[in-house]
Amino acid sequence: MRIARFSIDGNVAFGAVEGESPPGSTGGLVLDIIKGIPFTDFELSGTKVPLNKVRLLPPMLPNKVVAFGRNYAEHAREMGNEVPDAPFAFFKPSTSVIGPGDEIAYPSFSNEVHHEAELAVVIGRMCREVPRERVKDVILGYTCANDVTARDVQKREKQWARAKGFDSSCPLGPWVETDLDPSDLTIMCTVNGQQRQLGRTSEMIHSVEDLIVNITEAMTLLPGDVILTGTPAGVGPLTVGDEVAVTIEGIGTLTNKVIKRG
Amino acid sequence: MRIARFSIDGNVAFGAVEGESPPGSTGGLVLDIIKGIPFTDFELSGTKVPLNKVRLLPPMLPNKVVAFGRNYAEHAREMGNEVPDAPFAFFKPSTSVIGPGDEIAYPSFSNEVHHEAELAVVIGRMCREVPRERVKDVILGYTCANDVTARDVQKREKQWARAKGFDSSCPLGPWVETDLDPSDLTIMCTVNGQQRQLGRTSEMIHSVEDLIVNITEAMTLLPGDVILTGTPAGVGPLTVGDEVAVTIEGIGTLTNKVIKRG
Repeated sequence: MRIARFSIDGNVAFGAVEGESPPGSTGGLVLDIIKGIPFTDFELSGTKVPLNKVRLLPPMLPNKVVAFGRNYAEHAREMGNEVPDAPFAFFKPSTSVIGPGDEIAYPSFSNEVHHEAELAVVIGRMCREVPRERVKDVILGYTCANDVTARDVQKREKQWARAKGFDSSCPLGPWVETDLDPSDLTIMCTVNGQQRQLGRTSEMIHSVEDLIVNITEAMTLLPGDVILTGTPAGVGPLTVGDEVAVTIEGIGTLTNKVIKRG
Repeated sequence: MRIARFSIDGNVAFGAVEGESPPGSTGGLVLDIIKGIPFTDFELSGTKVPLNKVRLLPPMLPNKVVAFGRNYAEHAREMGNEVPDAPFAFFKPSTSVIGPGDEIAYPSFSNEVHHEAELAVVIGRMCREVPRERVKDVILGYTCANDVTARDVQKREKQWARAKGFDSSCPLGPWVETDLDPSDLTIMCTVNGQQRQLGRTSEMIHSVEDLIVNITEAMTLLPGDVILTGTPAGVGPLTVGDEVAVTIEGIGTLTNKVIKRG
């Protein structure tokens, strides 16, 4: 099931995305409005709205986004870094999250903002110290993410709160796909239609299971929290006016435009 | 005014702390229950409860905690680090926050957990790109914090999400003091009554104003968000059974016991 979050007539709701549409279009899609929130057993209301009549929101409003660095060897090498033995994590704050179609505001304190296409894991239940064999039980599904990064600031500042945590630096969407094997999916990033990043999730050094075991060893995850699993090679600059799109096989495409921060 | 957050009969409320008590005691203190939340103009209800009849909670439940590293030169040097030219920030997640009297659970993945006494700034209103002269307008007040750190993990992992973000690694409290000049306060940490850290906030390399200008250049702060301003020299290990206390002049004392993680 594909679960979207959207606003309609001033209300926020979740809905199951139904129907098919050609790539780049949402014309054939409808949302069957979900009663309540999709973290426990839930029912569809049967009330349907065309997807192109609503505004899609970030599919989750996470309490925290935990992102992992250097999880694709080729990307670590392109940045001139060693491939780490163990995963390492950093946070992106909830204030950095935007949805599909929202604008990435180019921050005033950087001159080198990069795209980083990533598979995002959405957590479905409160959990900590999750054993490897139970990881699948705490996952609601998967969405596309762009770990937008002020690369110049990242190089200057030892910890990355500003470089990777500025407002609008965490586009998520377009929806959460709940029925998906994340182990070998194509992940692609285009800028203005030109391919910049292309990889497969099978190239991850540490699997989704590894990452969730690693982080829940230390901290509790809450329903709606999001785990970013690293970016493949091909990261590069964004400029004002660009349209950046992250496409993951089996999920869909997350598109955002870069604007000057107002 | 001192604003505490507490639970009574299963409800959570804010209250103004009134009265005086000798150091180490709360016997003479009462809470005048606040109507609503203390971020906008608010009234006291006049309903008073003795402070030692309620359970104090973290004075805020922040959306995010932004912490600054190496903001006291002597601490940077004791860790063998250079004093950075510019501040750098990292996050502690909301799931790491505990209140006064709550227990710090020694994490399973570390053998070297350190205390770090810090002045915490509590944000009172949503803000971004705050000019230096308006910083005081966005501050609700100040409380004590302990930036509990798994030092061995911090040394191993390039980013500090696990080392400084594990559950219970962010004690805050006992309350928020709204009438305080933060520029030259004694800050002390004791373990089992023995002094470990002693400094003055005047030794900060970057002032509270500097830090809030720096972080809001990049991101929006929300009411209840917390800024940790760095720790003075004298950090050291905690072991199970220890009682660690952070005392800041003009605020009070935040005490937490270290237990084995269950």
